Amino acid sequence: MSRLIALLTDYGYADTYVAQLKAVLMRMAPQAVLLDITHEVPACNIRSGAYLLSTVVPYLPEDTVIVAVVDPGVGSERRAVAVRGTHHLYLAPDNGLLSLALRADLPQFAVALDNPRYFLPRVSHTFHGRDIFAPAAAHLANGVPLEQLGSPIELQSLQVLEDIEPEIQEEHIITHLLHIDRFGNLIFDLHEDEFECWLPPDGQVQVEFGGEVIPLKRTFSEVEEGKLVAYLGSSGHLEIAVNAGSAASYFHLRLPTRECARVRLR
Amino acid sequence: MSRLIALLTDYGYADTYVAQLKAVLMRMAPQAVLLDITHEVPACNIRSGAYLLSTVVPYLPEDTVIVAVVDPGVGSERRAVAVRGTHHLYLAPDNGLLSLALRADLPQFAVALDNPRYFLPRVSHTFHGRDIFAPAAAHLANGVPLEQLGSPIELQSLQVLEDIEPEIQEEHIITHLLHIDRFGNLIFDLHEDEFECWLPPDGQVQVEFGGEVIPLKRTFSEVEEGKLVAYLGSSGHLEIAVNAGSAASYFHLRLPTRECARVRLR
Amino acid sequence: MSRLIALLTDYGYADTYVAQLKAVLMRMAPQAVLLDITHEVPACNIRSGAYLLSTVVPYLPEDTVIVAVVDPGVGSERRAVAVRGTHHLYLAPDNGLLSLALRADLPQFAVALDNPRYFLPRVSHTFHGRDIFAPAAAHLANGVPLEQLGSPIELQSLQVLEDIEPEIQEEHIITHLLHIDRFGNLIFDLHEDEFECWLPPDGQVQVEFGGEVIPLKRTFSEVEEGKLVAYLGSSGHLEIAVNAGSAASYFHLRLPTRECARVRLR
Repeated sequence: MSRLIALLTDYGYADTYVAQLKAVLMRMAPQAVLLDITHEVPACNIRSGAYLLSTVVPYLPEDTVIVAVVDPGVGSERRAVAVRGTHHLYLAPDNGLLSLALRADLPQFAVALDNPRYFLPRVSHTFHGRDIFAPAAAHLANGVPLEQLGSPIELQSLQVLEDIEPEIQEEHIITHLLHIDRFGNLIFDLHEDEFECWLPPDGQVQVEFGGEVIPLKRTFSEVEEGKLVAYLGSSGHLEIAVNAGSAASYFHLRLPTRECARVRLR
Repeated sequence: MSRLIALLTDYGYADTYVAQLKAVLMRMAPQAVLLDITHEVPACNIRSGAYLLSTVVPYLPEDTVIVAVVDPGVGSERRAVAVRGTHHLYLAPDNGLLSLALRADLPQFAVALDNPRYFLPRVSHTFHGRDIFAPAAAHLANGVPLEQLGSPIELQSLQVLEDIEPEIQEEHIITHLLHIDRFGNLIFDLHEDEFECWLPPDGQVQVEFGGEVIPLKRTFSEVEEGKLVAYLGSSGHLEIAVNAGSAASYFHLRLPTRECARVRLR
Repeated sequence: MSRLIALLTDYGYADTYVAQLKAVLMRMAPQAVLLDITHEVPACNIRSGAYLLSTVVPYLPEDTVIVAVVDPGVGSERRAVAVRGTHHLYLAPDNGLLSLALRADLPQFAVALDNPRYFLPRVSHTFHGRDIFAPAAAHLANGVPLEQLGSPIELQSLQVLEDIEPEIQEEHIITHLLHIDRFGNLIFDLHEDEFECWLPPDGQVQVEFGGEVIPLKRTFSEVEEGKLVAYLGSSGHLEIAVNAGSAASYFHLRLPTRECARVRLR
């Protein structure tokens, strides 16, 4: 059995935190195959991490073990959890990081990672990725049932981020900013799966953001360079961009930030 | 059969584009092994991408499937192609990105990737790496013949970059800038395989660039720190550097740029 | 036999040096599994490289082949060596890069890499990672005995960095700076394995550095934001940090630098 373990963190590549986590995985589950989702989640930014994770989950092979660690509360009383979704297994701090992934991959069962038998022998105060999450992932990849990793918890008790679902009203939709990517594109929580049924048949949709009225197009290159444009990006989410420029610079935004756009359906 | 799939893109590591592409590969071709050539080709810079790809191709195991995506024309009418070289298989937009690799690995057969049966079910406007190139690579790794991926095309119709071969004249060679690396070294299209037969036996060669006359040495440390030097770099190409400095800064150059040097054979 | 080969270099990810090295490994040892320790060691900084390597070695599977290349002396007369430790096999330039790893993984036997039969056919002046170290690693992974790679050398002749062991005195310990991480934390050579036996039972320890007296705490969040704090980090080493800030900025330090702290035991 060769099991895929996929990793998302905010550890970066300059230090060896990612390599320490992987070394534990490779020692404990030598047959596992590893995939880096990204290790450049903006530091401690759970909301961006939740979005980035959700972009990859739909493409993963069935039954992937996902380790997601963006963990500003490490060392505090926040829980560490293991969640069985419909398609994949998740290990993460219980801080909302899984909220978007679990909207599409509905959770079936969850435990708190509170059985120290499945930790490394010595657990540091600040590096639970290596000392708790990686060993748990290795055990799952080796066939240990998720139930053994700790005490069952109510699915309803899992932390969920606020403002990750659009508010659909009669003449418009309120949609919340999830992430700003490295090109300065603004990415919102409105997804094409929900959006298409709300689209008026004539397709005349406008997006209001930051005092501007922005046309919804098929792709960003359908407006002139330097102009604002809205479109459904490759992850299926509504994005606002400046063609050949940066919408984040245009609106003087940087992470972390919380903003809304209004999609006028008229 | 464990087949190597090697990846070169300008997607960067901060977002999850690379991971989405790899997730598709791992789901469709679970036995394949993946190698990152680089994902930090300067954005949309086909010429640098072509050079960077060519530096790795000679070292790859026979029959590697290479996915190369630097694709400013995505969504336009540019073709996507699959090319069988003498040693490897290539998937790329037909924009010249393969020109340098195919000078050393002569193309035998090519098709346009126009058979949607081998795409993902839903193809986005902007992310053909995930939706077209990755599935095609997975099919090749699984043993699907390249011929099935689309309609045959003439090898002569493949796009080739301009100014990627040195112009050899009686007393000098004109050589074109291909890439500037992160140390500020300037890398030219003159390669040792062609160059050695032109070298005068006494080895007294000078390189003229940007109004300077630069000595050709065995390696950059053979001149004083701060001094200009030319040498054949580890990829076999002529390079101009400043020992312990940056030739790009010295000459006020940055990518994208098009320059020539003159190698005086005298 | 699937053998792990772990890689540490200062090559960075923007160029293809890492990929060229890996392509050689994959061609020569197709069954090997590769792990990136990091490729972002600060350029030519042997001391940081030695520290970073040592943080991962304790977690690696037994018998890993480690390729470590931070090599400012490439092309000079410095030796290239292969070392058999108690747990792992090491390939590196003989410049002190292995000093910290070999303190924990005691060396048993070493050779100079002087048998050209195990090099690539053509060895460049500047890229021994690809042309000498990678082929040697592939041969080791394929089962070639380390003894065959070159001439035996005395273990005592291996280069060792200066100032990598704390100086323990009656009332205090002098400890040397090893590395500054990307958060600006200062990491010293005092390790918890040696430190615990020296800790006074009342735990009242202070660290003096740069004219400041800094409390030793369990973790950095036990002081107010903006305040200096010392603690034993996740690698077990003494660290000095500013909670939610940068100790490197506070003390106007940047790599490369050589500093000492004094740990007052009383």
